[in-house]
Amino acid sequence: MKNISYIEDFDTWVSSFTYSFPVKVRFSETDLFGHLNNTKVFVYFEEGRIEFFKEIGIMQQWLANSGDGIPVTSDLQCDYLRQIFFDERLSVFVKIHTIGRTSVDLHYMIKNELDEICITGRGRMVQVHKKTGKPFEWDEKMMNNLKSSVSSVNI
Amino acid sequence: MKNISYIEDFDTWVSSFTYSFPVKVRFSETDLFGHLNNTKVFVYFEEGRIEFFKEIGIMQQWLANSGDGIPVTSDLQCDYLRQIFFDERLSVFVKIHTIGRTSVDLHYMIKNELDEICITGRGRMVQVHKKTGKPFEWDEKMMNNLKSSVSSVNI
Amino acid sequence: MKNISYIEDFDTWVSSFTYSFPVKVRFSETDLFGHLNNTKVFVYFEEGRIEFFKEIGIMQQWLANSGDGIPVTSDLQCDYLRQIFFDERLSVFVKIHTIGRTSVDLHYMIKNELDEICITGRGRMVQVHKKTGKPFEWDEKMMNNLKSSVSSVNI
Amino acid sequence: MKNISYIEDFDTWVSSFTYSFPVKVRFSETDLFGHLNNTKVFVYFEEGRIEFFKEIGIMQQWLANSGDGIPVTSDLQCDYLRQIFFDERLSVFVKIHTIGRTSVDLHYMIKNELDEICITGRGRMVQVHKKTGKPFEWDEKMMNNLKSSVSSVNI
Repeated sequence: MKNISYIEDFDTWVSSFTYSFPVKVRFSETDLFGHLNNTKVFVYFEEGRIEFFKEIGIMQQWLANSGDGIPVTSDLQCDYLRQIFFDERLSVFVKIHTIGRTSVDLHYMIKNELDEICITGRGRMVQVHKKTGKPFEWDEKMMNNLKSSVSSVNI
Repeated sequence: MKNISYIEDFDTWVSSFTYSFPVKVRFSETDLFGHLNNTKVFVYFEEGRIEFFKEIGIMQQWLANSGDGIPVTSDLQCDYLRQIFFDERLSVFVKIHTIGRTSVDLHYMIKNELDEICITGRGRMVQVHKKTGKPFEWDEKMMNNLKSSVSSVNI
Repeated sequence: MKNISYIEDFDTWVSSFTYSFPVKVRFSETDLFGHLNNTKVFVYFEEGRIEFFKEIGIMQQWLANSGDGIPVTSDLQCDYLRQIFFDERLSVFVKIHTIGRTSVDLHYMIKNELDEICITGRGRMVQVHKKTGKPFEWDEKMMNNLKSSVSSVNI
Repeated sequence: MKNISYIEDFDTWVSSFTYSFPVKVRFSETDLFGHLNNTKVFVYFEEGRIEFFKEIGIMQQWLANSGDGIPVTSDLQCDYLRQIFFDERLSVFVKIHTIGRTSVDLHYMIKNELDEICITGRGRMVQVHKKTGKPFEWDEKMMNNLKSSVSSVNI
């Protein structure tokens, strides 16, 4: 098994995901090598992340335009373990790894229909202030939403 | 030659373009059939259109956020005459066909390096009011910019 | 109502669609004007078309690599009637308008959750020979699949 | 300065790039937050990487279809240091960090017109056998091409 810096014990890591979102590979997402183009995985990460944020209740606050924060991508990391092909039905798993004062570290895993792991990944999202672009602390409600998601996994 | 509804005399039509913008086909824009994916042509149209609008001086007004209008796509039409492949260097030609009170009808042509016509197209852009979304008349400066571009072609 | 060249009677046209495929608007498909970027509609058309071809049983023959034909886009046309926004759940309707010896003319309609029509479109797909790139006649099975789909609509 | 795992000394790292490729941000690559969508950076990485591979003479062998190897993405990593906006003219820098028997580790840096660093990144490409999908050793010519590129940097 490939060594992946952000995964300690692989089996534990895999089994700790509880949320997933389904994605089907579009024709326009393939490339001339006949498989999913490597850049499209990040589109799946983004879709999975947003659906996850909706699930735990914090996407709504960003979209409602009521607060001053918006989420921006701080970094992203992706390991390609297995090729993905046109028309495959994938599951994009997302979980919170750690929570900071203004940020959250997310882990990703993409499985195909045979339950094979094709992709692993991680990345930090930071909440910044709309006007200043500076990191912006989670309010209490958001922090609670983030924490409740983690505890449902870890306990 | 394929019959294309928006082209009367093909040779006259081809020779009336004076503006073009260069595009190189990216790997991520191909699909598993080994050629440029059909949906990406509209990305090239959009890029060519915006560069053309800059060239004639009206894009600046939209981007400056000084006015109340923004351009929206009303319709688009595209004929695929010849396949396009990875790494080809294309010329995206754009010209004004007709000007309305709130809209402009643009024609498009994409040629490859062998000067072969791969794509023809057309589409109407409408200026709408940012707030209301209703069609919004060209101001005098914009109308002059649009007209000067056409006359340079037609006279 | 906007005049659209490929639609005779609008109500009849709308009611003649029987197949649709669901699509959700991704964040990465929006643009800085805050709505769905115009080029992404053709990604939805392609996905709807492929799912429709699966539904009527002809996509399988192309993917199986058993035959000599592949489908290519001959032309596409799209009218934008209403803006589409992030996270909207759309229905992409597809139907056969006419069948040729080597081609099929498809019509498209995209509705939002309020059952409002946002997009109409059409386009011809041509089956070409893999090696020669020349138009390639439908075999009997494909022709039957295409016809049965139409008759279910028109009778 | 943000701590980035694959960069030891930042100034040394920045100054060791010698190859760059220009990219202009397309309208369709922005999102509703008004900036470049995070997923599009990987499209720029891919374009920069391919142009770099052409520059050092190994892309030609893959495209010529003469050999048995094709390049696949093994992993990718990206740090977002500064927002990127519509119409910015960027320089995508690419360099070889390390060379393995079947792989190459590339580093990336994207600067804007003000010479500000917006993005850093890295990722490993592996040459695999077309048929088997297994890692496939560089032949002598490719290895020489890879090495000559590095030495031009390091000496």
